[in-house]
Amino acid sequence: MAGSTYGTLFTITTWGESHGPAIGVIVDGCPAGLALNEEDVQKFLDRRKPGQSRFTTMRKETDQVEILSGVFEGRTTGTPISLIVRNEDQRSRDYGKIKECYRPGHADYTFDSKYGFRDYRGGGRTSGRETIGRVAAGAIASKILCELGIHITAYTKSIGNIVIPEESYDYNCINNNSLYMPNNEYAQKASDYLMECIKSQDSSGGMIECIVDGMPAGIGEPVFDKLDASLAKAIMSIGAVKGVEIGDGFQAAKSRGSINNDSFCSQQGEIYKRTNHSGGTLGGLSDGSRIILRAAVKPTASISQEQETVTTKGENTKIVITGRHDPVVVPRAVVVVESMTAITLVDLLMTNMSSQMDHLTKIYHRD
Amino acid sequence: MAGSTYGTLFTITTWGESHGPAIGVIVDGCPAGLALNEEDVQKFLDRRKPGQSRFTTMRKETDQVEILSGVFEGRTTGTPISLIVRNEDQRSRDYGKIKECYRPGHADYTFDSKYGFRDYRGGGRTSGRETIGRVAAGAIASKILCELGIHITAYTKSIGNIVIPEESYDYNCINNNSLYMPNNEYAQKASDYLMECIKSQDSSGGMIECIVDGMPAGIGEPVFDKLDASLAKAIMSIGAVKGVEIGDGFQAAKSRGSINNDSFCSQQGEIYKRTNHSGGTLGGLSDGSRIILRAAVKPTASISQEQETVTTKGENTKIVITGRHDPVVVPRAVVVVESMTAITLVDLLMTNMSSQMDHLTKIYHRD
Amino acid sequence: MAGSTYGTLFTITTWGESHGPAIGVIVDGCPAGLALNEEDVQKFLDRRKPGQSRFTTMRKETDQVEILSGVFEGRTTGTPISLIVRNEDQRSRDYGKIKECYRPGHADYTFDSKYGFRDYRGGGRTSGRETIGRVAAGAIASKILCELGIHITAYTKSIGNIVIPEESYDYNCINNNSLYMPNNEYAQKASDYLMECIKSQDSSGGMIECIVDGMPAGIGEPVFDKLDASLAKAIMSIGAVKGVEIGDGFQAAKSRGSINNDSFCSQQGEIYKRTNHSGGTLGGLSDGSRIILRAAVKPTASISQEQETVTTKGENTKIVITGRHDPVVVPRAVVVVESMTAITLVDLLMTNMSSQMDHLTKIYHRD
Amino acid sequence: MAGSTYGTLFTITTWGESHGPAIGVIVDGCPAGLALNEEDVQKFLDRRKPGQSRFTTMRKETDQVEILSGVFEGRTTGTPISLIVRNEDQRSRDYGKIKECYRPGHADYTFDSKYGFRDYRGGGRTSGRETIGRVAAGAIASKILCELGIHITAYTKSIGNIVIPEESYDYNCINNNSLYMPNNEYAQKASDYLMECIKSQDSSGGMIECIVDGMPAGIGEPVFDKLDASLAKAIMSIGAVKGVEIGDGFQAAKSRGSINNDSFCSQQGEIYKRTNHSGGTLGGLSDGSRIILRAAVKPTASISQEQETVTTKGENTKIVITGRHDPVVVPRAVVVVESMTAITLVDLLMTNMSSQMDHLTKIYHRD
Repeated sequence: MAGSTYGTLFTITTWGESHGPAIGVIVDGCPAGLALNEEDVQKFLDRRKPGQSRFTTMRKETDQVEILSGVFEGRTTGTPISLIVRNEDQRSRDYGKIKECYRPGHADYTFDSKYGFRDYRGGGRTSGRETIGRVAAGAIASKILCELGIHITAYTKSIGNIVIPEESYDYNCINNNSLYMPNNEYAQKASDYLMECIKSQDSSGGMIECIVDGMPAGIGEPVFDKLDASLAKAIMSIGAVKGVEIGDGFQAAKSRGSINNDSFCSQQGEIYKRTNHSGGTLGGLSDGSRIILRAAVKPTASISQEQETVTTKGENTKIVITGRHDPVVVPRAVVVVESMTAITLVDLLMTNMSSQMDHLTKIYHRD
Repeated sequence: MAGSTYGTLFTITTWGESHGPAIGVIVDGCPAGLALNEEDVQKFLDRRKPGQSRFTTMRKETDQVEILSGVFEGRTTGTPISLIVRNEDQRSRDYGKIKECYRPGHADYTFDSKYGFRDYRGGGRTSGRETIGRVAAGAIASKILCELGIHITAYTKSIGNIVIPEESYDYNCINNNSLYMPNNEYAQKASDYLMECIKSQDSSGGMIECIVDGMPAGIGEPVFDKLDASLAKAIMSIGAVKGVEIGDGFQAAKSRGSINNDSFCSQQGEIYKRTNHSGGTLGGLSDGSRIILRAAVKPTASISQEQETVTTKGENTKIVITGRHDPVVVPRAVVVVESMTAITLVDLLMTNMSSQMDHLTKIYHRD
Repeated sequence: MAGSTYGTLFTITTWGESHGPAIGVIVDGCPAGLALNEEDVQKFLDRRKPGQSRFTTMRKETDQVEILSGVFEGRTTGTPISLIVRNEDQRSRDYGKIKECYRPGHADYTFDSKYGFRDYRGGGRTSGRETIGRVAAGAIASKILCELGIHITAYTKSIGNIVIPEESYDYNCINNNSLYMPNNEYAQKASDYLMECIKSQDSSGGMIECIVDGMPAGIGEPVFDKLDASLAKAIMSIGAVKGVEIGDGFQAAKSRGSINNDSFCSQQGEIYKRTNHSGGTLGGLSDGSRIILRAAVKPTASISQEQETVTTKGENTKIVITGRHDPVVVPRAVVVVESMTAITLVDLLMTNMSSQMDHLTKIYHRD
Repeated sequence: MAGSTYGTLFTITTWGESHGPAIGVIVDGCPAGLALNEEDVQKFLDRRKPGQSRFTTMRKETDQVEILSGVFEGRTTGTPISLIVRNEDQRSRDYGKIKECYRPGHADYTFDSKYGFRDYRGGGRTSGRETIGRVAAGAIASKILCELGIHITAYTKSIGNIVIPEESYDYNCINNNSLYMPNNEYAQKASDYLMECIKSQDSSGGMIECIVDGMPAGIGEPVFDKLDASLAKAIMSIGAVKGVEIGDGFQAAKSRGSINNDSFCSQQGEIYKRTNHSGGTLGGLSDGSRIILRAAVKPTASISQEQETVTTKGENTKIVITGRHDPVVVPRAVVVVESMTAITLVDLLMTNMSSQMDHLTKIYHRD
């Protein structure tokens, strides 16, 4: 199936393999008149680029984006925006073992099962480089949200057992450490832990949190396309994510109604909630308070330790995955979570525009 | 937006409000030739029906399903199957307070925000009765899966702090207790806890687990429509669900690659995994092992305690929600989780049919 | 596939067979706040109801519609509107020959090819009664258009060789003759011709024209979802339609640019076109002038003459289709063309709402 | 809206403007294992390339395609295929008049109405160059059809009043004349007529016919996604097309049932139709006979004659469109019609795969 397109009115279609000539995305349905240039997109891409710290691959990629269509005289035209990033580091090398074996924790086996064969070079389509398209599109979605006064912040909440409690958050720190954590001390602890992982030829998982401020109430669709359901899909579609929760999430399963229910109250005619256990959604629609979501990211599958596996012919064997690999993918996935959130919100803001006759009249009425 | 349809090739479109004349679903894209009668569907509906135990509402509903189209001489014809359940218990009553106030934890406020007004009778479209359509459709999807040797089991894993550890599971117990728990002792403890909740005019959350056996490898789409992403949306679209995880889920965030990676091995030519931390998916495709997912369900929002809230005019007030309410929705949501899982799997099995040229040739080749 | 749903934001999902208990439609994505009652829908249904003249089947159906959901206190709520019409005339009768043979011009053979078997009672899903759902939904779409100052008029342009030239149109006549023709004299000629068809156990084709006034410029999507392309699909999806054209249509193929191009001109700041060869669309978008489309309808396939055909087992045979059949379907299809046009326009008006950043700001801006 | 994607399982997403750096298409959902290289695609593109005859623009474009993803070791991998063609002839020139005026017959005015402004360089997104993406995708779809024994032939049926009657067809001629007509004498007449058009600074419309052989019976979806409805949309979405008909099309409106009905008959167990007035579809499904469709193409809008129009500010003015323009777009649109037909058929063949339980069993059954 054509599963490379996401969204209803604001859609992104990503394409490209790790070791092909390029990777890219088509953003379709972007409203006309948005100021946009390559720098806007590049800023987002730079946040997921390899080589930023000792915990990211040394792959040499500048990941320079080029806008091929949809922008004219500095503004979006309403037609599809084609964004492309050339793959620079496609050194031909010996894929021998990867070609003939199924790497544990990777999609080699499942791709062969689905398609009959696979592009074994660097993971092909399942490479983390597929997220370049998402992030480039996320930059555009974020700009749209900005214009509407909606702001997203994403960061690393935990790495391994190093979890930052909410009361220790300092959002100003996020960009001050290479792990994108909202607390520099915890970032240091996490850094130490990762060094230890590298030493033991191992990798670590972690948790990403994403918050949205300024979202108007009533966005989302009440049954299948709930705001939280849509976010869940968006976030779970990112490579290594194994769980998603909104607000209190799994903690709510242990809670009681008297605690979990957020009381409404009113001040100067403005309705708000005293608490936010719901994480900003009620009945699948935004409730006007901060949206909070968390994603659980599994440990990097590529580790240097020898692992047991099978060949494509079904013979038991052992594999050592060579090369340098990120001991954790969480920091580079932060901007991916932020991007998928932005894309999802823009799409739901658009589909919501026709929810009331009054809105149609506002756009189409002629006096 | 038209958010009441779910699926690509196998779609369900639900309709109906709690206090309207009826509730129903259109199942479109069901393959022709499946044996189907009302009893097949009724069996599923009976599992979510109210009045089954002291923990479910006393609302008198037989929830009898009628097939209005799409079945001829005991077999599906390939055309849309319309299923309808009449609402019997629509006693007109005084909705006064509910009409004028926003109930905490409910979608009253968000519906008003989105649509400008709302059907305040019994929650209208946000009522738990909306799931009748999902479950009726789930019965059909489950029958299709059965024909292909795929079987789903869903059950209550926890209620409040009563969590059944995996080693204590006895799947044979699931239907032996009114909480659908795979262990009768834990079910008794949970039952005691719920009695205590009722006494303190409170409610409880809980966790549902769902497993799938017999799924072939390679199902799902590798980028946005990953098997796990699709399941996440399906499950998170159920009213009270606040979190979804696959396999080790949030636990994977604390794990290491050397533990979390499942080794492949081979026995008599058959490839399988030694462990199943991944919960049956790799790279968004089924990996041939058991699919495992968990949903976190929040405590019932309707509690008898007096709660603070605001009126629709923005005045601070207090509300007491009268009537009898389930102290927990988890047991009745078990079959909803099972149904949404079944519907999602059938759809992905169908979209996967065109993944290889060989499949097209198998269906269309003429000699 | 699930092919019974039409539309992106404003969708209709039809269901039901000719001889099942009922037939219906779910209209999803209708904006909240539209005044709507059963009478609004019934007026449309009455225009396609059988038994209106000697040229329509004598099948006894009152085709009374019931609204089952989505309307509260006389206004749409924004949730799916379920509309149902009971089939009254389901006399069990002997389908013997129809069951065992493929009727020429009907879908019996193609249904068997696609699904492996078919519901042979009265055409099952391919019965003209399937259009009940379309017309019921069309009534709602038309009400939305009305609120925006957009008005549709559809009528019979020709029956057999009786073609009304444009200069003889009198739109006031349309509802004054049972053939829905905009000229009573031509209607009389057509009526005579149809009597002759009946006598010779034959049937006739014809042409329907549909015009739309008040459409704002710029509606439609420029590439695949062009306004004219979307209308073409909508109209061609009606049972007996074999051709669709916009504006000069097939005549344009013989024309020259100097004639076919419509000059723009301006009067008091208002831009309009001097001519309308384009039929109201340029580059797939509405151009502000009247939309004009025509549909070619084939002769009724059911005729009383003996016809050659084959049995389902592939033996040559002859068939006489008994019962009374409309000698022409055109008049009853007029309201179906109008309905499909209305549904398509509403959907495109909605998807267009997010075409400019200014529109988003207009809906979401908070000062 | 995101209207640049077409299809359900086999989708194409086109992007790019006439005067941007490149133009392209993403083909998603192509089955894995199809042999494919750039030459396969180039052959199709060469058929729509400018500069082939004196009737096509002299724009210097080699239109060389590059495959950027989705093909590995000469076979499709099942992941999105990104195809790109660089625009070479982007000479910056003075667009003065085009920028400030609305060209008659063009989409300048409607684009401004929809988006608030437009890329005025060479028509931007509405340029005929947009079809490059369609044709590149069509080459792939055609290869899939070939593998299944399905073959498409498209050609120019008429130019202006020069219409080739069916009995004069010689399909072998199609590629022997620059107008792609199936009769060289008629091609000569048409050529003469076009020379005359050029002399009088005018342009001509024409008709394209497309036939499909080898299509199995039962393909298409019976209600909204009928084979003919889907083809109608596909073809009408091509720039200058103003009408589409299937089989006898508009002629059927004048016909009678006794003539229009195609009798079935059987020879050696094989069922076929004696005639083919239906053009290969019954009830929206393929009936096993040749599919026949025709498209009416309007005269080229760009003509050298002075025309009346308005400025973007709404002032009356006159415009002379400079540069060399094709006096007819029909010949170059032939391969576009063929491509859109191929894409539509592949998609419907795929969605049909789940129409019967037997098909699912055939793909998924394990013994």
